[in-house]
Order: sequence, then structure tokens, then C-alpha cells
Amino acid sequence: MKQLILVRHGESEWNKLNLFTGWTDVDLTEFGRKEAYDAGKLLKAEGYRPEICYTSYLKRAVRTLNQVLEAMDMDYLPVEKSWRLNEKSYGAIQGLNKADTAKKYGDEQVLLWRRSFDVQPPALDMRDERSPRMDPRYAELSDAEIPLTESLKDTIARLMPYYKEVILKALDRYDCVLVVAHGNSLRGIVKELKGMSNEEIIKFNIPTAVPYIFEFDEALKLQKDFFLGDAEEIRRKMEGVANQAKSK
Amino acid sequence: MKQLILVRHGESEWNKLNLFTGWTDVDLTEFGRKEAYDAGKLLKAEGYRPEICYTSYLKRAVRTLNQVLEAMDMDYLPVEKSWRLNEKSYGAIQGLNKADTAKKYGDEQVLLWRRSFDVQPPALDMRDERSPRMDPRYAELSDAEIPLTESLKDTIARLMPYYKEVILKALDRYDCVLVVAHGNSLRGIVKELKGMSNEEIIKFNIPTAVPYIFEFDEALKLQKDFFLGDAEEIRRKMEGVANQAKSK
Repeated sequence: MKQLILVRHGESEWNKLNLFTGWTDVDLTEFGRKEAYDAGKLLKAEGYRPEICYTSYLKRAVRTLNQVLEAMDMDYLPVEKSWRLNEKSYGAIQGLNKADTAKKYGDEQVLLWRRSFDVQPPALDMRDERSPRMDPRYAELSDAEIPLTESLKDTIARLMPYYKEVILKALDRYDCVLVVAHGNSLRGIVKELKGMSNEEIIKFNIPTAVPYIFEFDEALKLQKDFFLGDAEEIRRKMEGVANQAKSK
Repeated sequence: MKQLILVRHGESEWNKLNLFTGWTDVDLTEFGRKEAYDAGKLLKAEGYRPEICYTSYLKRAVRTLNQVLEAMDMDYLPVEKSWRLNEKSYGAIQGLNKADTAKKYGDEQVLLWRRSFDVQPPALDMRDERSPRMDPRYAELSDAEIPLTESLKDTIARLMPYYKEVILKALDRYDCVLVVAHGNSLRGIVKELKGMSNEEIIKFNIPTAVPYIFEFDEALKLQKDFFLGDAEEIRRKMEGVANQAKSK
């Protein structure tokens, strides 16, 4: 049996402040670190033994992975980081309060920006200080690759080459692969693995810091998938995410 | 100008208990984490910008690197881990108290085990639970590569292929490379870079969590090397390491 473990990063400072984050590089809260550590303790207790790990260029994901590996006592594992696992870019609304934005533009518009499959939020200017072009870590990206805003469709499009070339190939070679990333980059992987429609994936909320396990046979045919942990707590976390950007 | 930054891990639980550690995978103390974080803050304040990082398979080094990267706000940097950067194996005296061992075998014998160039401590049995052969992270090593004990000479011999093939090549490609490792694996690099004799390197004590900077010209000719930080504190740290295994 082969296993792919997906973990969404723990609570971030901007989750807590209810701001649109996207590519903004904000830290975990203390609660977020604890959530991440607990996810690692649970994986260890349940006997999971990843052999290689993937994460994004954003510290809330890297630090979640560090906490998971500390808790599993597996700090020695190889880790590869890629911008392609980054969160969806929210463009020019990054840094704005979700509820305020909903009041100003209406719940419906904000829901389109957050949860439509192919509607992009307003774009950043390439010279905006929030633009990835200003950040040395993205110096290797071409102008065409720099996302100034993204729909979920765009996020999945730039994720897929990495998923297929790197993560799926790792699953060929290893029995257990761990990916720590973000709500929308993980949606891309879940959509692909479960063959979900655009509508289904939009409604699917991945809870923070809950290990999401996919089991495959040796031919990489998906056998089953499930969240690891207390069902009631997972349900609460999923609803919390869904309700973040209501205006009241 | 090119830069190589060496950092020895912060204080570990067994440094504090004064036990021979070697390949035993012990955690940092709270003080050790703080030392490491402070080293990162200092590097950041002084404007160092590493582009790639190397560390060992041992958590006291990995966690030191994680703290340094958190403090520098550069969690996104690529990190490569290798067993070749591990500490010198102390063989069968791993887990023994340094002062007790000195009382039992004499200061002189213990000084030979700790600080001679080519005398090995007594070897572990391959089936000893402390043997790396029992640890899945070393499954890829051949029996000949598994160290059951090491002199400093042995440590340097297994380090050198990695230093030459990986770290020096990274310095060709990048302007600034960060290596977080251990007292004796770092001695190997320092000996090579400074052309020290066997006697000189044995007497050279690398303080914990102090950035040790090597500056090169574009042809990788060493221009200068220095420790970053307060001279008095660095001197105190170097003496502390030198005096650990005295019997009284």
C-alpha cells in the first residue's frame, strides 16, 4: 500500500485577523503551531512513516511541516519546497479584511473571489510592494509565472506540473509521501485524486492541520481517503473555514 | 565575494548533562534554541543572505537551522540534509558521562578519544541498539559506511566527499552558503579551508551557535575568516567546550 498525506497549515496570524492572505508570508499563531505539532503527534501515534516531504515557499506551511516533523521525531527527512505549492494569490485584496470586503463589495462578489472556480480577484500591479516580483525568493520565476492574481483554476494550473512531475513520481518511488501546503493548492490535489467537478471542489473545505490520508494500491489506484482524528473536531474546523468571509 | 557560513548547533540536552553524544539524536535545550535563534538574528542584522543550506541527519543540527531560518525570515530556502555532516561517532562511550569516563579511564585516555586525530573510542557492536544500523534513517548506508566508532580522521574522511561534491560546488553556483552541523564535522571543513595541521585542528574549538564566516574571491580563494558576534562571549564559549571532559 502507498500513502499520500496532505496537511493544511495551522492557524495563521491573518486567519485569526480574518484577512485575505494568499501569497503574503504571515506566521502561524501559537495555536497554529500547537495544531501542527498535534497533527504530527497523531501521525506518529497512528504509525505513519513518511519518507519524503513537500511544502511551499510560505513560512506558515514550512513551520507547520517543521512542527509535524518535530512531533514525529523525523527531522532528518528530506524536504523539498516549491512556489507551486503556494496558496492561491488573492491579488489586490491581499491584506484586506474578509468581512469588511464583503460589506463593501457584497457577500456575493466576495464569494465569487473566494469560491468561484475561474473568477480572479482584482490583480496586483507588478510594481506593487505586495507583488512577488519584489521578493527575491521568486527571482527565478518568469514574468508570465508571477501570479498577480489567481482563480482556483489558475492555482491548479500552476500546481499541476509539480504535482505530476514531482509528487506523483515520489509516490512511485516511496511508500509514504507528506505534503504540507494551503487550502487551495491542496484543493488542486484533492480534485485531481478524487475526480471532483469544479463545483464539488469549490464546496470542499479542508480543515487546518488535520492529516488527510489517501491510500493507493501499488499501481497508484486510489483505494480510500479519510481525515485522521476526532470527527466532531474536524467538522467544526471545516465549518469555521466556510464561514470566514460572511459580512455578518 | 563569496561567503560560506558555518554554524555549530546550539546547546543540546546531552551537552548540558555532559554526556558523550556523537550520533545519538538528542534535542536542543531551551537555551540551545535561543542561542540558535540569536545567531539567525545576528546574521540577519549583519545583512547575510544565504541562498542554500546544508545540515546533518541529527535533530540538534536540523532544529538549530530551523531556528536560524525563522530568525532570518528565510524559511523558504532550500535545505539539504546528509549523514556525512553528522557529528563524529563516539562509539561505545556514547551516553557515558564525560567526567565519570575521565575518572574511570583517566583524563589522558579520554582526551585521546576526544581530541587525538586518529585514535578511535571503543567500537559499538553492529547489533547494539545504539548502532546506526538499527536506525531506518541510515538504511541506505552500506555496512562499510556505518560508523561504529570514529576518530576525527575517520569523520573527516567520510565528510570530504560531500564537502567537495556538494558544498564546494554550491559555492561555485551561489554567493552565500550556510552549513549547520557539529563540532567535529565542522572541524573537517575548517581544517581543509585553513590548511591546518592535525595538531592545530585538534586544539581548535568551535563555539556553539556562533556564525563562523569565510569570505572568498570569485576564484574561491579564501580571503578572510572570522566569528560573528561579541568577542568576549565567543572566547567564553570556546573555553567552555575545551573544559567539558576534565575529571574535576
